[in-house]
This record gives sequence, structure tokens and C-alpha cells, in this order.
Amino acid sequence: MADSVLTTKPSIDSILARAARLASDYLSENKNRDRLVVDWLPPGKLREKLGLKLPKEGRGLEAAFTDAQSFLKRSVRTGHPYFLNQLYTGSDPAALLGEWIASLANASMYTYEVAPVFTLLEEELVRKMGKMAGWEDCEGIFNPGGSISNLMAVLAARNAAFPHAKQRGLLAEDRPVLFCSEEAHYSVPRAASVAGIGIDAARKVPVDSIGRMRPDALASMIQKALADGFKPFMVSATCGTTMPGAFDPLEELADLCEEHKLWLHADAAFGGSVLFSKKHRNLMDGVERTNSLSWNPHKTMGVPLSCSALLLPEKGQLKATNALDADYLFHDTAEAYCDRGDMTIQCGRRVDVLKLWLSWQSHGDEGYRRRVERAFDLTASGRDLLKLRDSFELVREPEGCTLLFRFLPPSLREQERDEAWNEKLERANITLRERLKHEGRIMLNYASLDGLATLRLVLTHPDLTVEDLRFILDEMERAGANL
Amino acid sequence: MADSVLTTKPSIDSILARAARLASDYLSENKNRDRLVVDWLPPGKLREKLGLKLPKEGRGLEAAFTDAQSFLKRSVRTGHPYFLNQLYTGSDPAALLGEWIASLANASMYTYEVAPVFTLLEEELVRKMGKMAGWEDCEGIFNPGGSISNLMAVLAARNAAFPHAKQRGLLAEDRPVLFCSEEAHYSVPRAASVAGIGIDAARKVPVDSIGRMRPDALASMIQKALADGFKPFMVSATCGTTMPGAFDPLEELADLCEEHKLWLHADAAFGGSVLFSKKHRNLMDGVERTNSLSWNPHKTMGVPLSCSALLLPEKGQLKATNALDADYLFHDTAEAYCDRGDMTIQCGRRVDVLKLWLSWQSHGDEGYRRRVERAFDLTASGRDLLKLRDSFELVREPEGCTLLFRFLPPSLREQERDEAWNEKLERANITLRERLKHEGRIMLNYASLDGLATLRLVLTHPDLTVEDLRFILDEMERAGANL
Repeated sequence: MADSVLTTKPSIDSILARAARLASDYLSENKNRDRLVVDWLPPGKLREKLGLKLPKEGRGLEAAFTDAQSFLKRSVRTGHPYFLNQLYTGSDPAALLGEWIASLANASMYTYEVAPVFTLLEEELVRKMGKMAGWEDCEGIFNPGGSISNLMAVLAARNAAFPHAKQRGLLAEDRPVLFCSEEAHYSVPRAASVAGIGIDAARKVPVDSIGRMRPDALASMIQKALADGFKPFMVSATCGTTMPGAFDPLEELADLCEEHKLWLHADAAFGGSVLFSKKHRNLMDGVERTNSLSWNPHKTMGVPLSCSALLLPEKGQLKATNALDADYLFHDTAEAYCDRGDMTIQCGRRVDVLKLWLSWQSHGDEGYRRRVERAFDLTASGRDLLKLRDSFELVREPEGCTLLFRFLPPSLREQERDEAWNEKLERANITLRERLKHEGRIMLNYASLDGLATLRLVLTHPDLTVEDLRFILDEMERAGANL
Repeated sequence: MADSVLTTKPSIDSILARAARLASDYLSENKNRDRLVVDWLPPGKLREKLGLKLPKEGRGLEAAFTDAQSFLKRSVRTGHPYFLNQLYTGSDPAALLGEWIASLANASMYTYEVAPVFTLLEEELVRKMGKMAGWEDCEGIFNPGGSISNLMAVLAARNAAFPHAKQRGLLAEDRPVLFCSEEAHYSVPRAASVAGIGIDAARKVPVDSIGRMRPDALASMIQKALADGFKPFMVSATCGTTMPGAFDPLEELADLCEEHKLWLHADAAFGGSVLFSKKHRNLMDGVERTNSLSWNPHKTMGVPLSCSALLLPEKGQLKATNALDADYLFHDTAEAYCDRGDMTIQCGRRVDVLKLWLSWQSHGDEGYRRRVERAFDLTASGRDLLKLRDSFELVREPEGCTLLFRFLPPSLREQERDEAWNEKLERANITLRERLKHEGRIMLNYASLDGLATLRLVLTHPDLTVEDLRFILDEMERAGANL
């Protein structure tokens, strides 16, 4: 009884209407640079403040709304232009609308009969994205994130090279190895671990000065592996690496893969959207020669998490790899040829295509092209800004839309660079980054590169300007003045 | 320029407000039994009707909204009481609110710093659900669906038994085998395939007359595997099987697993919610002795897809299995002990906990208990209704909230049951089910059981009544009268 009293129609109407107002206010506040990105609290204090407890008796829809409001206040504004912490950003209203309607429809993507419209949207998006990669017709599937897309690429490659593995497991004589660059995403070696191949079998190829896999090094590593009796089966190239945003040279890698009959995967989770731009798509020249391609619209295309496609030019590989005979789900109906559930390692699967579809309708190819080119232009300006200031050193020449640099605190400038200096620099950069995070105005990330903490600005937010970059650098100088 | 014109604040305000109205109307129409579950069109016709095309120039937010409306009209009403096709159903407004706010916040669950509130919600939900399973303290993680939860359980079990596999891959001497019942979900053998163990190594244990794994059969199969030189490492029990909704006997399986030092996993994706009910939780007696437990709140708890937890009583196993050193994401900060990204095979991970949190706040333990007990009561009534009618035969005595039965068309009643009869029965049941789907008022599913197509009604929708069941059976008799 209580349940239905608590969720009468007027109450639902009013809560959803208030959620809509909350959302539009939140989105418009994202544009206000004076708004904090995060009102930072450490876990202990936040836990105390929120007083989290699951109740025995229901508190009703109103109470749920009040909680949601207070949670939002304490969450990170990932759509704020100064959230530069990850490879995703933005908060596109058309995509948000797509998420809202998708959760309302609550379909599962395994069969046409349960998800007729969304199945067709997925087909069409796969076709279009495949075409952009140079394939007239291809297969593909949307997965919960780039790591799962990369895992499914490793599984498809494993199935092509060791087809017995699906049924009988890996055999002693298989000795599979795959290659990725030393700056590839950790999901690639982890996929090797998941697939029973082992992390050691994901061999890391050295990169050049801007972070691209070196084909000459790959060639020798393939030779070495063969000489040692291993069976190389795959090269996983990266288009837009996690740190410098570099693009591995697909043409040269494709030559090597053709020579040795290796599966070439392109992890373009971050970089895939350069395909919208005539000006920059040369970074992915050769993509049409790959065997599989991961591409995450939830990154530079600004669609909410998660939205990640795996595309393959040769049809039938996903089912060959993943299908099992689940007759309680997949039937021999007239429309069964549209069922997509057998192509994945999931069963129930969220609708991740509607948000992308609506966003694409709203912006068009041209809108995405502008967004991509704007990010490249901004990165070029940001690089020049950095070079002009004594307080920063550029660590890598940017190839994509990412700046890698270190802050040089006043106390360390014009001093001899020895080990002690390096240690101080390391500490200063990490401290500066944490300080900014705790202040809450700017969030950016860092990692170790060439043995030293390196700051990273990912410049893909569509509202970010050169003025913003100046402000961000000013802020770093201010917050780091006493380091 | 065009982009910002198309998404001005008044336009966003108005679109989100209209989305809210659309959603409340849609939810309230779900309660109207006269509404079709689906206005069925086969793929070719639907494709034609929708005229799907991705534009070169953006069409703006208004056009996106119009598309969303028309897509919704052509989608399946999975929240309608007569959508009985899958193991999930319902459309809880508090959970929907959770999805809306989660997509607005657009956090990724890998680190506390990006998802502070949602990280704490996940911790608390894991603690609470673990407590319900009888664990004072446990670890756990939310995954995109039960198949991924089951895969992660297989990986954790593999890591416990063959710890070298993560780094070095599976070795020739490993010879792993795992066991599940012949009516277990296909995600378990597929997890064996993904993990490099192979489908053949997922051995299928016979079930008893209502669909429960037979411990005596398991015991002999373990002995046989050992005698053949294999290394059994895991038993995956099912709590709420896909077809009859049966519960494997955890206590007896736990005894065997203790004896042979096997990892006991409970796939309670469907059945986990019986833990809310004192009256029915005996079905999962022994759950506190398992090593891992999958439980999908997106099923009987009515939360939108996907929401699936994997819980483990012994802390540290998820990181031991899945962690890699990704220093661009995971840092040595003061709050790093809260970071959860290293516990999964994903990297970016959607917020699937807010919808569950808000729904739980709204309904409380008691609301969920009522929902579960209602479904059991309804199933008992449905079973009795079926037994009273000549036009149906019950195929399994229900243990959970699922009815398995066959429709006996008038033309086949009181006839000798031979092979030809069986073939006719098979065809009649499949035809009836497709007919209902094409009419669009009722959607239910079927699968082969004991060699014959068997219809399945999943009775977990919170608004479903005995009156509805009578109507559904009447409708089947009407639609099947000429079969």
C-alpha cells in the first residue's frame, strides 16, 4: 500500500519536472567559470556529511529527490570547462535527452523483439562509423567502455588465430603473444590476462619521441618472438594514447601485420573522432587496413558514459567468437537475423546508442568536425602559451589534443638538474595538482613519463577557449608560487 | 556558431521539461492494460518507417526531441505489466530519477576524486547487500550486467586456483574445469571461453525434476574429473535459473566445495532479491558459504538496466585478479584507498549505483520484501489457475516466480502423444507466442525444455494481479483456438 501512495501520478509528474529544472540549471551553471568543479571533501568527511544509510521503511520519492539534489552538489562537475582530468568531458543536452529516454524505455539490446528501434539505430551507427573508417560494410557493437571493446578485439583476434580456444581452451602449443606500445592503455595487457594469455604475453613496443609505436622495434620484436617459438597473433595500435594523445603509424603497422598475418587492432577510443576532420584524419591513415577498431563517442564527441563501439570490417567474427546456443533468448524468428546479443560477451545490454544518435542528429558530421578541429587548434595555442612561460616545460610535442608538461616552481628554476632536483620537481608537480584539486577550481591529471611526474591537460571541452587556458596557467603559477 | 545557437538555455530548458512530461505520461500509460506492449513491425518495415539517416549538418535539439518521441512510440513498453518476456521488468520512478541524475553528473567510477559521492554509495550498497548474504564485511563492485559479474567471478576463481595465469597465462599442466548445472545461464560457459579455459571445461551437471543442480551428480563429476587428471576449481550455482527460476541447493554444494577446496559462486542475478524475504530466503540457505555472489537489482528490484553487483566475502580478491599498474589513473593520494577502478575489468565505468540507491530510499527493505513476496504469491496463484484449465499443462512445479507450461491447442487435446503430436505441439506453442507478440498485447518467452518448446511467464512486475493472469491465459486460449 505505502508503495503506491508514495508514487502517485501527481507526485511523479512533479518530481520529474523538478529533475528537468535541476538539470537545465546544472547544465547552464557548467558554463559559469566561477562555479567550482568540485567542492572537495576527503572520504571520511564526505561520508559524515552525507550520513549514508539504507532505510528499512521506504522514505518515498520526495526523499529520493532531496538526496539526489544533495549528491549532485557534492559531485564533480565533469561538464565544466575546467574539468580536464580525464579523456572525457562535456555535457551535450541532446545526448543527455537520449540517456533520459533510453532509461525510460529500458530495453535490453540482445534481441530485435525487445529493442526494435534501438537495434536499427545500432546497425546504422555501426554502418556510418565503419564507413568513416573506410569500410563499405562492416559489423560492430556498442560495449560498456573502451576496455571491454579492447577485450572483445583481443578475443576476436584470439579466435581467428586459435579457433579451438573458444571450445577447448588455450593449448600448450599455442604460445600466443600480442604487441602494443609501452604507452598503450592498460586495458590491452589486462585483456591478455582475462583471455588466459597472460600479461607477459602482451609485449610492449618502445615509442618514438612523441609517443608513437616504433615499427622498426615492432619488427624486431616479432622476429624475436618467432625465433623463440612464440606465435604472434595481434598488434594493438593506439590512436590517441592516454598520456600524450599520440597516434601509432597504422600504415607501417599494417604492412608488418600483413607480412606476418597478424590481426591489427586500432584502439582509437580517444582518437577515433579525428575521422570527422579532413584536416586531421591523416593521423589515422591506414585505419581501413585494420581488423578491428575501438572508438568511444563518450570521449571527444561529448556523449555521456558509456558509449564505445567496436567495429570490424569482416562480418561474422563477433558471433564466431562470442555466440553460444542460448535458446531461451535467441529464436529462429523471421527477425532473428537482426538479433545482436550473440555478438558480445554480455547478455542484457544497455541502450548506449540513443544518446549518440540524438547527439549526432543535433550536431551533424559538421558539428563534430568543428568540435574536433577546435580542440586541435586550441592545443596548438596552448602549446605556444606554455612555451612562452618560464614556469612550465613542455614534455612532449602534442600530436593530438593533449598537453604534457611540468610546472617549474620558482625555487627550482635556473638550478642544476640532478637527482635531488628531479625529486623536488616530482613532489612540486604532484603537490600543485593535488592543491588545485582541493581548491576545486581546476582538475587536471598526471602520470609518470620518462621517470618524472608529468601534468596533462586534455583540451577537448567544446567551450574551452584560449582565455581559459591563460587563466589555467595563471592559476597554476599562483598555486605553485611557494613550491 | 550554429552549435551554440541550436542549444541556447531556453531551448534546453524547454526540451528537458518536455522530456519530463513525456516520461510521466509514458509511466502512467504503462499502467493502462489497454495500451499495447509493442506496436509490432518487422525490421524492414520499421526501417522504412523511421527513415534512419545521420545528417551532415546538425538538425538541432528540437529535431532530436521529435526523433526521441517517435522512437519511444515504436519501442517495447518493458514497464507494462504484460511485458513478461524477460527476467527484468518495471519502471520505478525513483530509479528513473537516479538514471537521469547519474547521466547529468556523468562521473566515471574509477577513482574517488572523479566520483566521490557515487564511490561512497557503491561502498555502502556493497556492504548492505553483503550483510544480507550473511557477511559482516565484504568487497564488491557493480558491473554492466550479470554476464560480466559471472565472468569476473570466474576470473577471481581462476586467480585463486591458478595465480600464475594473470601474468603468465594458463599453463599446460593447469587443466582447469568448472561446474554449473545444465540449466545455468550461458554466461558461465562463455566466461570459461573468454577466460581461455574453453566451453568444454564448463561441465554441465544434471538437474532434478524442478531444475536444481544435483549434488550427487556433481560429486561423481568432480571425482571423474580428478581421476582424469583435470583440476576442478569452481562450482557456479544458480539461484533463480533462467527458465524455471530454480534455486540450486547451496548448502550441499558448499559441503562439496569445502571438501574439494573449490570456489563456490552463486549466480543469483535473478534470485538474489529473495534475501529481502524471511519467508523465502531459505531458498538461498548457505549463501554465506559462497566465495562470490552475482545479484542484479535490475531484475526483480525494478531498477533500469543495467545494475548488477558481484559480492565477495574475502576482501582483496578483485584487485588481486584485475589490478594493473596504471599510474595515469590511480595515484598515491590520501583518498586512493577508496579508488575502485582496479577492482574491475573495465576502466571507465558508468554510475549504476545512484538509481539503486534512490530506489532503495524510496521503497526501503520493506518495500522490496513486499514486492518479492507478492511475486511468489502471484506465482502460486498462477500455477493453480493453469492447473484448472485443460488448455495448459504445467511443465515444472515453480520454485521461484516463473511459470513454465505448454499450451495444448484444442486440436491436440485427448490425443495420443507420439512424435508427430510433439511436433505439432512444438509448432503450436511457438506460433501462439509469435502471434501474441505480433498482436502486441502480451509478450512472453519460450525455450526448449525436455526437448519441447515451453512457454515462460516471469511474474515479477509489481502491478501484476491474479486478474491479469486470468486475462493473459484467456488471451492465449483465444489466440490459440485455431491451432
